[in-house]
Amino acid sequence: MEQFALKNAVETVRASVPLVHNITNYVTVNDCANALLACGGSPIMSDEPEDVIDITSICGALAINIGTLNKRTIEAMFLAGERAAELGHPIVLDPVGAGASRLRTATAAELLDKLPIAVIRGNMSEAKALAGGAATTRGVDVCPDDAVTPENLAESAAFARDFAKKTGAVVAITGAIDIVTDGEEAYAVFNGSPVMGKITGAGCMLSCLCAAYAAANPGSMLDATVAAVSSMGLAGELAEKRMGSRDGNGSFRTYLLDALYRMDGEALEAAAKIERIER
Amino acid sequence: MEQFALKNAVETVRASVPLVHNITNYVTVNDCANALLACGGSPIMSDEPEDVIDITSICGALAINIGTLNKRTIEAMFLAGERAAELGHPIVLDPVGAGASRLRTATAAELLDKLPIAVIRGNMSEAKALAGGAATTRGVDVCPDDAVTPENLAESAAFARDFAKKTGAVVAITGAIDIVTDGEEAYAVFNGSPVMGKITGAGCMLSCLCAAYAAANPGSMLDATVAAVSSMGLAGELAEKRMGSRDGNGSFRTYLLDALYRMDGEALEAAAKIERIER
Amino acid sequence: MEQFALKNAVETVRASVPLVHNITNYVTVNDCANALLACGGSPIMSDEPEDVIDITSICGALAINIGTLNKRTIEAMFLAGERAAELGHPIVLDPVGAGASRLRTATAAELLDKLPIAVIRGNMSEAKALAGGAATTRGVDVCPDDAVTPENLAESAAFARDFAKKTGAVVAITGAIDIVTDGEEAYAVFNGSPVMGKITGAGCMLSCLCAAYAAANPGSMLDATVAAVSSMGLAGELAEKRMGSRDGNGSFRTYLLDALYRMDGEALEAAAKIERIER
Repeated sequence: MEQFALKNAVETVRASVPLVHNITNYVTVNDCANALLACGGSPIMSDEPEDVIDITSICGALAINIGTLNKRTIEAMFLAGERAAELGHPIVLDPVGAGASRLRTATAAELLDKLPIAVIRGNMSEAKALAGGAATTRGVDVCPDDAVTPENLAESAAFARDFAKKTGAVVAITGAIDIVTDGEEAYAVFNGSPVMGKITGAGCMLSCLCAAYAAANPGSMLDATVAAVSSMGLAGELAEKRMGSRDGNGSFRTYLLDALYRMDGEALEAAAKIERIER
Repeated sequence: MEQFALKNAVETVRASVPLVHNITNYVTVNDCANALLACGGSPIMSDEPEDVIDITSICGALAINIGTLNKRTIEAMFLAGERAAELGHPIVLDPVGAGASRLRTATAAELLDKLPIAVIRGNMSEAKALAGGAATTRGVDVCPDDAVTPENLAESAAFARDFAKKTGAVVAITGAIDIVTDGEEAYAVFNGSPVMGKITGAGCMLSCLCAAYAAANPGSMLDATVAAVSSMGLAGELAEKRMGSRDGNGSFRTYLLDALYRMDGEALEAAAKIERIER
Repeated sequence: MEQFALKNAVETVRASVPLVHNITNYVTVNDCANALLACGGSPIMSDEPEDVIDITSICGALAINIGTLNKRTIEAMFLAGERAAELGHPIVLDPVGAGASRLRTATAAELLDKLPIAVIRGNMSEAKALAGGAATTRGVDVCPDDAVTPENLAESAAFARDFAKKTGAVVAITGAIDIVTDGEEAYAVFNGSPVMGKITGAGCMLSCLCAAYAAANPGSMLDATVAAVSSMGLAGELAEKRMGSRDGNGSFRTYLLDALYRMDGEALEAAAKIERIER
């Protein structure tokens, strides 16, 4: 990863203020909107089938998150996705809870099958469920057995590369160690904080950031995704450092948004912990 | 604007604890509820057609926000609106994204047509879209070309006055400079902070405040709306002043609610920047 | 209440990380998820009828909150509830606004009738509405006439005991003074802060905590509920104490989550204000 790409990715988001159409869950939607604003983007939420085609048409990217999917919003996901595809807008898929229910697994798989998804952002259990592996998703969190560790990093990266090749998408599998790959190049991102798992929405916010970064950096989907992933990880580190003795996940959540808001391309380059993963 | 009216408007909200029925979007709904509690009101959310008539009947005002409208909630908006109208409750309309999609523009226009809307609170692009002008809404934010500036203030006020006359509603067009008019009198409110545009929900929260102020100050719709608009603007100023070097939109959002919670009628009178706009 | 039970209840939640399936309102859902994470549980939200059976199957408890019920989510409540019942998972019911509309009262009553509800957590007006009393719910807040006071504590406890016996559930009626009873034993919990009524969601969060505590402490439903109620009350006290001169309900909400996150079994035993209510 050339350092220039990180700084450039961050700055082009702030300079271009990408509009991102989000069809997302109602649990973390407010944080998603504020995270998009914090990074320099502009959020729009719409999930009514009759509304989404117009809305996605005026945006630069579409973020689909199945966290609280229902029949109506699933229909909206496909309609918006088809329109985004026609317009060449990048589509980010966050398959929340794939593997935890048949509806989630099937919906995520069908979205992947029918839409030209540019970026898949999920945890390893979700990725395995979608790749047809034997993942056992523990709700919306990664199953401990699936977590990426220093020991299984090479093997995990090989899986991610295959999944990216199979889907044609940039794959971002995030957790204590993040893996980002386009099927050829693969990077491990070591930024982050364990407290990110103690708030709801760190993953959802990151998926929205991926959409903003993708919209602002067309033709550089891999670099854009690495930049989004490392900027969220660094924001988590800064938020954790800021915690005082009485602070918990309430304050952490606020600090995380604050850190995204203050994120600076040069600071990210200085603090990013990104390693290229050789085959 | 007589100073007494501001202080009185603020204090009657705290004294009467108006119940406000909100049919609103799921993005900012939590902030809307907390903003209503902060100003002294009491929020109720209900958007199921079978539920809204009973709920609006026990309230003092109805706030309709089309930010994430769908077929079910649109039906609920009309049912609740008709009941509120029968009971003489003030109805506030926040036409989020009018101009950005046909469904939003048409729904907002039909709500305006069929219900006796007391207050319309939106940005200039949304107002122009509803007034039949050639606005191009940039998602849910005002189109830069539509922003109210010192240079176009007179012209903008004339438009707002016409829109108010045409609709019979008090019109509050908010942005860097806010305009509030009942078609006769018009005021510019210069309170506010640019950081308000960096969180989601500042407009939505204000619309809910307008509903609480309208419920608590019947017969003074214009004064009540000016008080709500200036109190939100002042809260934004206080929140911005409180920001430290690591604070971003996460902390600002918290400080904004805090400032609403601490808002005092006399402090508002001292800090309000309201000017009557002559024809 | 033996002191050991409190500490043990808190610690078993952290040790077992119970997954809680929530079918809840979109107003406070983010706070509910963060409160569950703060206490040591893990939240999953799902309200699509086709999704809820799978989701509840992988969880340890089900929390049903009717705060923004609609036809689809009501169907999901019954489907998930029947599956949770088959699996022996504790079900917590939060009858938000029962008494405020016919749909809410009828839905809560039918849920109570058809499902083996383990814990009912609501305010006194909601409880009276469900018990067939003449409560007049003031929206989602308790009607002042219904509030539990030192003067009516014995009478209120008698009502709560009867309601618990009639329903077979542990009943937690919360307010300035909380009453928790299984129909035999009854406790008054005096922990809490008046600022809890100035944010949205204190009750909703508590209901989710009750579900996590119930899942982690099977066979001790009464102790688990008393522990959840007193831990939320203590968190409110700690949050209020932390408020500075510019803090309002925005900061309080953050501090409340922080206090839940830092909650410690021994600290709770030291600060809990629980009294056994004799018949």
